[in-house]
Amino acid sequence: MSKRYKLYEGKAKIMYEGPEPGTIIQYFKDDATAFNNQKHDLIAGKGVINNRISEYLMTKLTEIGVPNHFIRRLNMREQLIHEVEMLPLEVAVRNVVAGSLAKRFGLEESTQLQRSIIEYYYKSDELGDPLISEGHINCFGWATNQEIDDMIILSLRVNDFLVGLFLGVGIRLVDFKLEFGRWHNSNEEVQIVLADEISPDNCRLWDIKTNEKMDKDRFRRDLGGVKEAYQEVARRLGVLTEINNIDLNNHNSLSVQDGLA
Amino acid sequence: MSKRYKLYEGKAKIMYEGPEPGTIIQYFKDDATAFNNQKHDLIAGKGVINNRISEYLMTKLTEIGVPNHFIRRLNMREQLIHEVEMLPLEVAVRNVVAGSLAKRFGLEESTQLQRSIIEYYYKSDELGDPLISEGHINCFGWATNQEIDDMIILSLRVNDFLVGLFLGVGIRLVDFKLEFGRWHNSNEEVQIVLADEISPDNCRLWDIKTNEKMDKDRFRRDLGGVKEAYQEVARRLGVLTEINNIDLNNHNSLSVQDGLA
Repeated sequence: MSKRYKLYEGKAKIMYEGPEPGTIIQYFKDDATAFNNQKHDLIAGKGVINNRISEYLMTKLTEIGVPNHFIRRLNMREQLIHEVEMLPLEVAVRNVVAGSLAKRFGLEESTQLQRSIIEYYYKSDELGDPLISEGHINCFGWATNQEIDDMIILSLRVNDFLVGLFLGVGIRLVDFKLEFGRWHNSNEEVQIVLADEISPDNCRLWDIKTNEKMDKDRFRRDLGGVKEAYQEVARRLGVLTEINNIDLNNHNSLSVQDGLA
Repeated sequence: MSKRYKLYEGKAKIMYEGPEPGTIIQYFKDDATAFNNQKHDLIAGKGVINNRISEYLMTKLTEIGVPNHFIRRLNMREQLIHEVEMLPLEVAVRNVVAGSLAKRFGLEESTQLQRSIIEYYYKSDELGDPLISEGHINCFGWATNQEIDDMIILSLRVNDFLVGLFLGVGIRLVDFKLEFGRWHNSNEEVQIVLADEISPDNCRLWDIKTNEKMDKDRFRRDLGGVKEAYQEVARRLGVLTEINNIDLNNHNSLSVQDGLA
């Protein structure tokens, strides 16, 4: 375990070389950051919860035919994923006015949008992840027009599915952020697939009845109860039964029974 | 009320002329039929439950931008809808092997399909609603290629959303049947919109844990508990709180407070 090669450490996750070529181990940290790293804290257990929520959502997305990098969960904080060439983009899908959309256009938060809005951001800590347009993506060669089309189609499918799923468990999916990568699939074709994670770290989730925030905005806005909110999302999705009896503070990664020492 | 003009009476619904031009009142009956009318019975309260479930699903589909004929529910058994020119087609979306797909190809029921299958049926009692292909639709002028494309896109969006929604309430969406119509919208354009109803009458819904059937197959296969199953679907979707205290046997249509006497 100590011999594993660290490929990359981000704000909320670490990537290790996987057991087979073309695979990566994605480790979920408890670190929470906001406002381009100006705010930082540890939320004990967040990584464990997000690992489970993301496993559940990626598995269900695979079932409906949305290709993604997820292979299987390895243990409490790690999952095995396909190695993909990440596009330097964040794709945001918005159903309800919130966050930067409210600020930029002077709109009132919680207004339902007539149509879902897709936004692109260029992933760059130095630049503060600026909002960009398809023209920028094209001009700077971050993705081809076909890849943009693929990302739009997949993002809208993910949105339809997740809006339904969260509605079913009494949660309003306000907006969320996706990342995509190029995957060299088994037919030697290059395919755009969903990557990264889907969790309360990158979704805005509001309780349908109370409008209470159940996502990272509790951290950004110092509302408290961050872990409890994430746990409640996991509970409603039905993945908490497994999380229930485990030690959320456990920082072990690979465990013996996973056979991946 | 007695003066209303009946436009059409089907197996499970009656259409009356609406209060304004371009509108229709859709009345939900308690009649259940199967095997092209060879089997018939009354399920007391079915119409009331399906009116509510369909109201809920059509409203949510409108919110995510899937155009449909629903305007508003009028009372226990009726809803106001836009008048559309119905296409003589049923569009089935299948996620899991069941019913005629199992029979026709000798497949085992409950096998998850690798990709969702769309099937078309020609609505004709005399012919027994035969399975048709896009070639037939095109050749016989039942819909244009553009209309077929529109139906496919809408059907797949409805599927993504409903798979998610039902998953959230512990139900597996096995398959379902949609109908579409041409609507002359306010911009004087002709648009393909979802019509008819969405309810346990035309969806196969299985409890995720027990695989228990919660749909019309309970009637088709004499499993009993039809009304209770439909009620449980309504309860999980959160629409039963309203149905709970009302008399399911009530056959009143327009009520005084609706102001549509």
